[in-house]
Amino acid sequence: MSSSTGENLKLTIFGQSHSPAIGMTLEGIPAGQRIDFDALSAFLKRRAPGQSALSTPRKEADAPEFLCGILNGYTCGAPITAIIRNTNTRSSDYEAFKNVPRPGHADYTAQVKYNGFQDRSGGGHFSGRLTAPLCIAGGLIIQLLKLEGISVLSRIRSIGDIYDEGELTEDISYKSFPTVSDEAGARMQALILDLKAKGDSVGGVVECILTGVPAGIGDPMFGGLENRISQTVFGIPAVKGIEFGAGFESARLLGSVNNDPFAYEDGRVVTATNNSGGILGGISDGMPIVFKAAFKPTPSIALRQQSVNLSDHTAACLEISGRHDPCIVPRALPCVESAAAIAIYDALLSRRKEA
Amino acid sequence: MSSSTGENLKLTIFGQSHSPAIGMTLEGIPAGQRIDFDALSAFLKRRAPGQSALSTPRKEADAPEFLCGILNGYTCGAPITAIIRNTNTRSSDYEAFKNVPRPGHADYTAQVKYNGFQDRSGGGHFSGRLTAPLCIAGGLIIQLLKLEGISVLSRIRSIGDIYDEGELTEDISYKSFPTVSDEAGARMQALILDLKAKGDSVGGVVECILTGVPAGIGDPMFGGLENRISQTVFGIPAVKGIEFGAGFESARLLGSVNNDPFAYEDGRVVTATNNSGGILGGISDGMPIVFKAAFKPTPSIALRQQSVNLSDHTAACLEISGRHDPCIVPRALPCVESAAAIAIYDALLSRRKEA
Amino acid sequence: MSSSTGENLKLTIFGQSHSPAIGMTLEGIPAGQRIDFDALSAFLKRRAPGQSALSTPRKEADAPEFLCGILNGYTCGAPITAIIRNTNTRSSDYEAFKNVPRPGHADYTAQVKYNGFQDRSGGGHFSGRLTAPLCIAGGLIIQLLKLEGISVLSRIRSIGDIYDEGELTEDISYKSFPTVSDEAGARMQALILDLKAKGDSVGGVVECILTGVPAGIGDPMFGGLENRISQTVFGIPAVKGIEFGAGFESARLLGSVNNDPFAYEDGRVVTATNNSGGILGGISDGMPIVFKAAFKPTPSIALRQQSVNLSDHTAACLEISGRHDPCIVPRALPCVESAAAIAIYDALLSRRKEA
Amino acid sequence: MSSSTGENLKLTIFGQSHSPAIGMTLEGIPAGQRIDFDALSAFLKRRAPGQSALSTPRKEADAPEFLCGILNGYTCGAPITAIIRNTNTRSSDYEAFKNVPRPGHADYTAQVKYNGFQDRSGGGHFSGRLTAPLCIAGGLIIQLLKLEGISVLSRIRSIGDIYDEGELTEDISYKSFPTVSDEAGARMQALILDLKAKGDSVGGVVECILTGVPAGIGDPMFGGLENRISQTVFGIPAVKGIEFGAGFESARLLGSVNNDPFAYEDGRVVTATNNSGGILGGISDGMPIVFKAAFKPTPSIALRQQSVNLSDHTAACLEISGRHDPCIVPRALPCVESAAAIAIYDALLSRRKEA
Repeated sequence: MSSSTGENLKLTIFGQSHSPAIGMTLEGIPAGQRIDFDALSAFLKRRAPGQSALSTPRKEADAPEFLCGILNGYTCGAPITAIIRNTNTRSSDYEAFKNVPRPGHADYTAQVKYNGFQDRSGGGHFSGRLTAPLCIAGGLIIQLLKLEGISVLSRIRSIGDIYDEGELTEDISYKSFPTVSDEAGARMQALILDLKAKGDSVGGVVECILTGVPAGIGDPMFGGLENRISQTVFGIPAVKGIEFGAGFESARLLGSVNNDPFAYEDGRVVTATNNSGGILGGISDGMPIVFKAAFKPTPSIALRQQSVNLSDHTAACLEISGRHDPCIVPRALPCVESAAAIAIYDALLSRRKEA
Repeated sequence: MSSSTGENLKLTIFGQSHSPAIGMTLEGIPAGQRIDFDALSAFLKRRAPGQSALSTPRKEADAPEFLCGILNGYTCGAPITAIIRNTNTRSSDYEAFKNVPRPGHADYTAQVKYNGFQDRSGGGHFSGRLTAPLCIAGGLIIQLLKLEGISVLSRIRSIGDIYDEGELTEDISYKSFPTVSDEAGARMQALILDLKAKGDSVGGVVECILTGVPAGIGDPMFGGLENRISQTVFGIPAVKGIEFGAGFESARLLGSVNNDPFAYEDGRVVTATNNSGGILGGISDGMPIVFKAAFKPTPSIALRQQSVNLSDHTAACLEISGRHDPCIVPRALPCVESAAAIAIYDALLSRRKEA
Repeated sequence: MSSSTGENLKLTIFGQSHSPAIGMTLEGIPAGQRIDFDALSAFLKRRAPGQSALSTPRKEADAPEFLCGILNGYTCGAPITAIIRNTNTRSSDYEAFKNVPRPGHADYTAQVKYNGFQDRSGGGHFSGRLTAPLCIAGGLIIQLLKLEGISVLSRIRSIGDIYDEGELTEDISYKSFPTVSDEAGARMQALILDLKAKGDSVGGVVECILTGVPAGIGDPMFGGLENRISQTVFGIPAVKGIEFGAGFESARLLGSVNNDPFAYEDGRVVTATNNSGGILGGISDGMPIVFKAAFKPTPSIALRQQSVNLSDHTAACLEISGRHDPCIVPRALPCVESAAAIAIYDALLSRRKEA
Repeated sequence: MSSSTGENLKLTIFGQSHSPAIGMTLEGIPAGQRIDFDALSAFLKRRAPGQSALSTPRKEADAPEFLCGILNGYTCGAPITAIIRNTNTRSSDYEAFKNVPRPGHADYTAQVKYNGFQDRSGGGHFSGRLTAPLCIAGGLIIQLLKLEGISVLSRIRSIGDIYDEGELTEDISYKSFPTVSDEAGARMQALILDLKAKGDSVGGVVECILTGVPAGIGDPMFGGLENRISQTVFGIPAVKGIEFGAGFESARLLGSVNNDPFAYEDGRVVTATNNSGGILGGISDGMPIVFKAAFKPTPSIALRQQSVNLSDHTAACLEISGRHDPCIVPRALPCVESAAAIAIYDALLSRRKEA
């Protein structure tokens, strides 16, 4: 556990925000899978910072160097390792926080856990930058899922109190701000820019849908799809909640309403509604897997905040001057897709053992 | 994964609703821990069915027999196995569903996964009855946590649209219907009884709080407390969502509001608010760990439902006549506490390795 | 780890020699596998004590009770748990050793590890009796391997200085003393009876061969067949060495002799010799998997031995009066077969993920 | 499993002989451990090729680049990743073997397993070169063990039929050919050079001793020290056997001889002999942990060998012209030490959880 995950697939993510490099190792991908590096590149670009006024000006190519595991464009069965060199880092930005933990960040908890030996710079191993290797793994796996007929879609479901109503039915990742309603998206962007100007930040919700997952994927109890997906999705910094299908709403419903009636459609079992989010007893029922992840607002804000000085045990004030996203949600979409894809692919591998 | 969980602690849950026995094996509890069987018994009683008009009339002693691992009242270091014999089962109740999967249940997904070889009777391995061994493990571990100064509290936060406002600050497990507000509790019970009379069911939300967890517990990324707790809590049938601290609400907040300011109190670092639910970067910050789990309504309802006949591929209607809880939430409290305790104790064991 | 093993298959063994029961849980067996309980019974009988003058007079039916996981003779996909009740135990035999650890046993190391809380009686969790649940798991899995065309053979290769020369080419498990040469077997039995009369014991070597394992099973590095098999075989008490193919002998050979030349036979790649024991780079090459396991002599001997008294830190003498096998090797054959079968079946499940 | 190992410590080894880089990630090392890079360098040099007439002329600096996990010379708690760039590779040497698997190598088994997509060049992921990252991990961990008072010693116990008699009692790693008897060492070297001239190779045995391991380390059954050490040691290519203490010899002994009598020495429990190799019931007894690993002769020999052509299913001859060690054993010492150190350190971390 910790920086590794997976039952059949083993993903290890390594690196700190300002260490020489960050990267990932992915073990368990069958040999002979063709890798489309252009598709991967396009996928990673969706997460990359510095692309619009909405995100941090830190510019990173985020171009992964593959060290092993892929030969002539095909996986060779050996572990796949890719790294991204860290450049354009400004560690001095963080010197001021050495003894004054930033509220909402892992500074204080890392200090306690690692007894002061943690890498503080840029948040160290806790930095959102570590989602770049997550997206390398996810980008590769999404390609493999596509070959099995599985698509991974996502959208910004809400920013603050602004909701993207309507249903997500197709891939809208080509949009620079992926909401179903462009009008809602425009209001969200205005809100984010407004908060940026005020030095504040805001949270939001990402919705993710996996279509084409065959029925029978997942395991009972602790190996259910909810368990597996939440285990990877909470690996993304700032996620504080997750719900499947109707989720928290289903807690308010009657059984007669929440139960999804079965029916045959083109000789295939479907459900008339999908309050279960495509998962019954931890196992896929053939309907789309639907879940939402709640992101807290970026903890790095420019406003003056109250904290403590850990060296002299006094109260302290803090103003963070670094470059930060006023809202992490737009860049989080490929991260959520990656986490879901990793979990589902691992469950797919488990399914093969039952054949 | 699947019916086993844990990194340092290994918990395996086995059995089907109507197999000769159900049970659990717990590996990794240090030797020399004193076990209070009376306290365990009292804990298990909170989950046991047949205690009030609110729950299924199936009566079960749920008295575990310990087969090994405990000697003269102390753990001996060997794996602990306890079983509960299944009695008072009425398998014939389920014969009718053989080819007609019950909506909201794992009948259909188990059929696909196990190709018809699954134990259908009483839901088989997917039955809520399997939470009894979960509570044996949880009940033991809650005793161990108490010795470390950690308490596990819970309450019914909502049933349908009725909310238990006010804050949970003390153990209210002595209440037969554990809400902070007895008035809210009375309204919830009335709603449940009303729905029972109508043959319907309703969902709800459980809030769980762990106090006394020292700062520094948990690991980065996939080993965070959110990951760990969600991985076990989703092992409870019917859970469809989980949120930590302000959770989904934090997605609507500004960073300046959501960030929990640090302060010193009696020489100890605390936060003025606890929107993070006591977890930053996956690691405890010393404040109470707070989370909520959403339970869908019991899928077994007496009302007529639409389903399919898997043998002849036609539409089919279904009426379920068995004995079922109109709302599983009241009995789910010790299950949620157990799942959380197991996750936290496992993280505590991980912490010891860093010493 | 510890009392659990397996990557895809999860085997947990629980119990102490004199606890109410011992048993095992096996998770990961696909649903729909037919179980032959008579064959299992016959297999377990090979390990059972009290069958001849060679072994301990403790009589045990060793008849497993299956608590779950098998329905109408077929695996149902849920974890399989079976237990054996402990009866005919004479704990008082062990009272004398409470503070005087028996040489060659785990008494002293368990005392240090569990700080005196271990179950001393009959060796507790370290007892050879725990190989009974190992053989339940092994017996089930050997049936599954047979369906894949894989047979598991074994023989007593040596007892003390007496060797069973000749090659093991067929199943000789029907023999009460399974050696290829009955004459060698007779001499071994005479030696054992002689040592029994003298209150002494002797070790030996078991050879195990798995035929029909297809090429391509196993993984590089830490997941090789040697790693996997040794990991389970050393789980049998008293095993102190293992070698594959020519093993230690190959350390004395020239490369030109040790290398197994490839050839085609009936359109299939074979090797002219099998010094590698059917494993190259951790992966099966289609030739028989061959390994030998060295068993130390039973540490329980009737002769007076030198030890210490842990309570008063003095030297102490010890005479063990209990009932013990003068040579464990004959009864160890099904244990070795089980350990090998478990490892190979787990590797077979891994192989399916690559399809 | 596979290219990852460890229960508390997670080691992942990645790379192929001729991929851009090879490397390792080590997760689970507590924060705040001081790393001595000079000591690591000296350790790695013992494994490096091209140092004497005995080994392959392929020259490699084998200088690891640390990408993360170490800050200002101290571990920071995040995963440690180090890589070694592959240079000085001559892939064309291997083109000839594309369809003609080299006897004794993983060529054929990899072909079957990876369906032709494996990286053949230099043996790919199966190359002995992958022991370099193993030694990075081992070199780091040996430093940590030293702080706990644990030393890891090794020697060449035999090459072919030449034995290094006498006992290993001190660190002889400073010797260029580490045998206790320099005379025996000289004869071994002469044998190796003679075989090199003949284009042949030879195997040998490495003995490894860990002193200072406290009693109580290790777990019962599948988590015993024998299981753990063999699981990592068989990760070194060419190892075909392992034995602990008297090992295979103990199979020939009487119990009265093999049992190690306990005694008090300076208030500490010791054993008069150490036939158990310091391990009873899988757990350390405080005596030195002693084991031997058998290495088969290097399969790459210059002599003409018999093989098959996998493309046209015919017999084929093979002459290997690359640069290879006529005997891998001298360079294998730090690999064996590393594997043992990794296993023991992991068991030490497990032990901490019992406190």
